[in-house]
Amino acid sequence: MEEINNIEVGPCTESNYLKPFRVHYSQNGTKKSWDFMRTHDSVSVLLFNTTSHCFVLVKQFRPAVYMSEWERLKAQPANTPEEGAAEAAGPEPPEGQSGAGGSSQPPASMGVTYELCAGLVDKPDLSLEEIARQEVLEECGYDVPASRLKRITSYRSGVGVTGSKQTMFYAEVSDDNCVGAGGGEPGEGELIEVVKVPLHEAMTFAYDERKPKTMGVIFSFIWFHNNMAPKYKISTNV
Amino acid sequence: MEEINNIEVGPCTESNYLKPFRVHYSQNGTKKSWDFMRTHDSVSVLLFNTTSHCFVLVKQFRPAVYMSEWERLKAQPANTPEEGAAEAAGPEPPEGQSGAGGSSQPPASMGVTYELCAGLVDKPDLSLEEIARQEVLEECGYDVPASRLKRITSYRSGVGVTGSKQTMFYAEVSDDNCVGAGGGEPGEGELIEVVKVPLHEAMTFAYDERKPKTMGVIFSFIWFHNNMAPKYKISTNV
Repeated sequence: MEEINNIEVGPCTESNYLKPFRVHYSQNGTKKSWDFMRTHDSVSVLLFNTTSHCFVLVKQFRPAVYMSEWERLKAQPANTPEEGAAEAAGPEPPEGQSGAGGSSQPPASMGVTYELCAGLVDKPDLSLEEIARQEVLEECGYDVPASRLKRITSYRSGVGVTGSKQTMFYAEVSDDNCVGAGGGEPGEGELIEVVKVPLHEAMTFAYDERKPKTMGVIFSFIWFHNNMAPKYKISTNV
Repeated sequence: MEEINNIEVGPCTESNYLKPFRVHYSQNGTKKSWDFMRTHDSVSVLLFNTTSHCFVLVKQFRPAVYMSEWERLKAQPANTPEEGAAEAAGPEPPEGQSGAGGSSQPPASMGVTYELCAGLVDKPDLSLEEIARQEVLEECGYDVPASRLKRITSYRSGVGVTGSKQTMFYAEVSDDNCVGAGGGEPGEGELIEVVKVPLHEAMTFAYDERKPKTMGVIFSFIWFHNNMAPKYKISTNV
């Protein structure tokens, strides 16, 4: 899918995206401090295409995932190539520069994740549903009214670092709602592939650890199985 | 549960915990860069007590969650106290210092989250199962052999920032396995409360958005319902 090369890593002293803060506080009389980062809340949408009986996901190269995979690979002892051994080892501290083209560079596919269509809550004048609607159009090319978005639930993510709130929606779309190719905003550097997962393969897909994905994908597929599948009279083989 | 006060927030120029890096790379010939952070992978464990038919969770004050809630509260227009209005607004940029005791300070409970027993994969010589076993003992007080941990699945978290891999396990414990009170390592500043959620209340709990929780809690409860509940012949009212 992707060709990734010329990789160089360095420390990041000033970032427009990652801004650490420190909070000092007293907890039951004991003074403490904690380093955290501010991020926007986010929304995600499980999209089910009722024409083709497929889930609509997005797939993209995630540099942070790729670097995490590379660290795990580097930490893996050379004589124990099994996955289990790699997982048992923690990530190494980074080198100042990681030159490109080294023999240990993993394939780009290891940094490509399957995710629900999602976006940041960064427009104060729009409802969560409106923001979700825009993401569905931009990323997946489906035009659905905000009123057709069903709220599944919300939860906290990155409780140690960001603690932001994520709200998940469900929307049924048909081929008739498809008005574009999706793919995100190239102007913002987004390079998103729209992927369809047939309903009858969904649970196998959800638990296939060779396909890197977010928990949102796994959770929402099971949620659908329990709450929506009976409507479609389809066995999803949980 | 907690008394939180004397809160002060400032920028964090040097952190032992949050270390931003920048990766430069070429994607299909186009030069790009991305700011990310390294974190350890992690493990989590869904614990089911077969004596009391309860799930065993942990509950703790999370400064990052609390600050995120506070930002959302500040962004909420004064004349629209409904939850929906607060959620529609994005977080504000931080002030240099947020004095304590302001009338808008939310209750500490808004920063307290329900989570699965979990820990970082930071011991290269231990298997994921061994690390999970240690966390179960330290945080929840149950002594279970690593061999009794059943792997549920793995997934990627914080795909935009950390991209770390989380592996989830399931373990059945009984009151006989309880050898201590749990509560984490006070020397490491951990102040963890062990909480039991009765099986018959689990699904209501999972979708109760007034109780802040991680997606891991919601997903694992549904996973149990679909995969384990039949064994206990108990309806979990999904």
